[in-house]
Amino acid sequence: MIAEYIAGVDIGGTKIITTIANATGIKARVYQHTQLQGDNLVIPKQAYMLIQKTAEYAGIHYEDIKTVGISTCSPFERKGMYKEIVAPNLCGGLTGSCRLPNSWQSIPLEEFFNQLYPEVIVENDCVAAVVAEKLFGAGKFHDNLVYVTWSTGIGAGAYVDGRLIRGKNGNAPHFGHIFITEDGPQCGCGNYGDLEAIASGTAIARDYGVNSAKEVFDNYRAGDEKAIQIVHRAAKNFARGLASLNALFDTEYIVLGGSVMNDSDILLPLIREEFYKSFPVLSKNVIIEKSTLFEYIADISALSLVMPASWIESWRTYTPWMHAPELIKL
Amino acid sequence: MIAEYIAGVDIGGTKIITTIANATGIKARVYQHTQLQGDNLVIPKQAYMLIQKTAEYAGIHYEDIKTVGISTCSPFERKGMYKEIVAPNLCGGLTGSCRLPNSWQSIPLEEFFNQLYPEVIVENDCVAAVVAEKLFGAGKFHDNLVYVTWSTGIGAGAYVDGRLIRGKNGNAPHFGHIFITEDGPQCGCGNYGDLEAIASGTAIARDYGVNSAKEVFDNYRAGDEKAIQIVHRAAKNFARGLASLNALFDTEYIVLGGSVMNDSDILLPLIREEFYKSFPVLSKNVIIEKSTLFEYIADISALSLVMPASWIESWRTYTPWMHAPELIKL
Repeated sequence: MIAEYIAGVDIGGTKIITTIANATGIKARVYQHTQLQGDNLVIPKQAYMLIQKTAEYAGIHYEDIKTVGISTCSPFERKGMYKEIVAPNLCGGLTGSCRLPNSWQSIPLEEFFNQLYPEVIVENDCVAAVVAEKLFGAGKFHDNLVYVTWSTGIGAGAYVDGRLIRGKNGNAPHFGHIFITEDGPQCGCGNYGDLEAIASGTAIARDYGVNSAKEVFDNYRAGDEKAIQIVHRAAKNFARGLASLNALFDTEYIVLGGSVMNDSDILLPLIREEFYKSFPVLSKNVIIEKSTLFEYIADISALSLVMPASWIESWRTYTPWMHAPELIKL
Repeated sequence: MIAEYIAGVDIGGTKIITTIANATGIKARVYQHTQLQGDNLVIPKQAYMLIQKTAEYAGIHYEDIKTVGISTCSPFERKGMYKEIVAPNLCGGLTGSCRLPNSWQSIPLEEFFNQLYPEVIVENDCVAAVVAEKLFGAGKFHDNLVYVTWSTGIGAGAYVDGRLIRGKNGNAPHFGHIFITEDGPQCGCGNYGDLEAIASGTAIARDYGVNSAKEVFDNYRAGDEKAIQIVHRAAKNFARGLASLNALFDTEYIVLGGSVMNDSDILLPLIREEFYKSFPVLSKNVIIEKSTLFEYIADISALSLVMPASWIESWRTYTPWMHAPELIKL
């Protein structure tokens, strides 16, 4: 039996978005700020409640949902049959800081949802995004495909030899945490000099002394020398990170998304220039492009994880993510 | 029909080794210095001739060989159906230097052998080594397994989610060419500051001002301060490279081989100390060990690529690589 309706859940540090779709398109979308207080089932319960609310908005009974795709911040740690979320931006018990109002060591999200639904797939948000890129983006015809998000953090998802790679705990490829310089500022993960600590949106803002990378790019466009230096260094290191990733994956196509790529007109030429300087035999012919799904990727990623094969052709034709109903705030 | 005899060919920059085996063990082994003068079929023809000679030593007719596994230095570049070797240490036409007595742009080895034998598998030598580690080494029971060679160069082969990864040209994972520092000495591949330029045996010797890493380790053991500094820095950066690789592959088991690992008593504690400092959620529980096949890995890698499944149990029991006939120089 093919699912008539599927639900997608996107769990981030600041909000949870739930979406319900059927073969013809997206029926309803709802979001709420992520609840970080209480026991470590607060987020799974919140996500479950949001699916029920979204079903109401879609005009269907919540029991019509049998299939749920969940894209979430990670990393994961496997505990028995299921992987639990051990993300420092959700679990206060991992960081040892007082930044988060909880002391969770992990969130048993996959187990919780498997008790509620017959078909559940939980993946890192960038892994979900590369599935969407493979189905609906420019990566459709490539067996070796990487999606990279360049945002406040840096992450990736990858197909190698036509297969989605996951690794032992579902954490492949944790691109933001490869080392990029011998010494360097400390990352939230504890590493010194990894890619996220050197080139993320957060790092770009920190290096300039402002709150967001967007301000740095605004100053770049105004010709500010300090902004130009910081952006050039970040783009150079980001490109060297891509070259490292390509050395390990021997990929065909690198698709870039994430909020920093809003300034892709500045960044893409810089990234390409640096990338193609690396070992020519490995770097030549690798395609580097901004995602064509760019602003829709979060809407389509979680759904892509569980989309029935029979829907795909029509979704490719009608691109329902471009005609989705308004996102409702709860 | 199961092959009665198989041949393994190991092609390096300095020598080619050919091996013939059957279900009960290794029957003959022959080597010759790699011929680098002539047209770009010299090496394929030399390897073919060596298989014939090895068959003679094994006391069989060379036409009894239907199956050949070839482990070779790389990278590769795909040309139509086959991948060609585009290795800077074999192909003089790639480097633009006068170091090599030929001007080859590539070596069409896979195509050449496919015209001669019904079953041929060609892989990078570290990819072949990880197949051997999966079949006969400590990685037998791990779906996520990496073999890394730390030698004059640095390379790797990997299983992710139980599958050998290859990438679009068969170059995954080209571990030596990930970037490890923001600036740094130039690698033979053209990169500045990649792992091979910073931490290979060649780099260790260069940093001390001698011809081989072994001399540096001898000085280390004598308490020489400069040698200690150089070895510590190389081990630190090698470990950070392993941490980057693990961030992308989320692996279980890292097996180390290669000539630099002859000094594993010095290096393993340094590598582990640095590796486990990296992002704890990703690095904890990853096992890092010296290869148990260490001195035999080259003898068994190429054979492993084409070994019939029915031989494996008995090879695991009788470990014929430990009782191989003497290597004959031609």
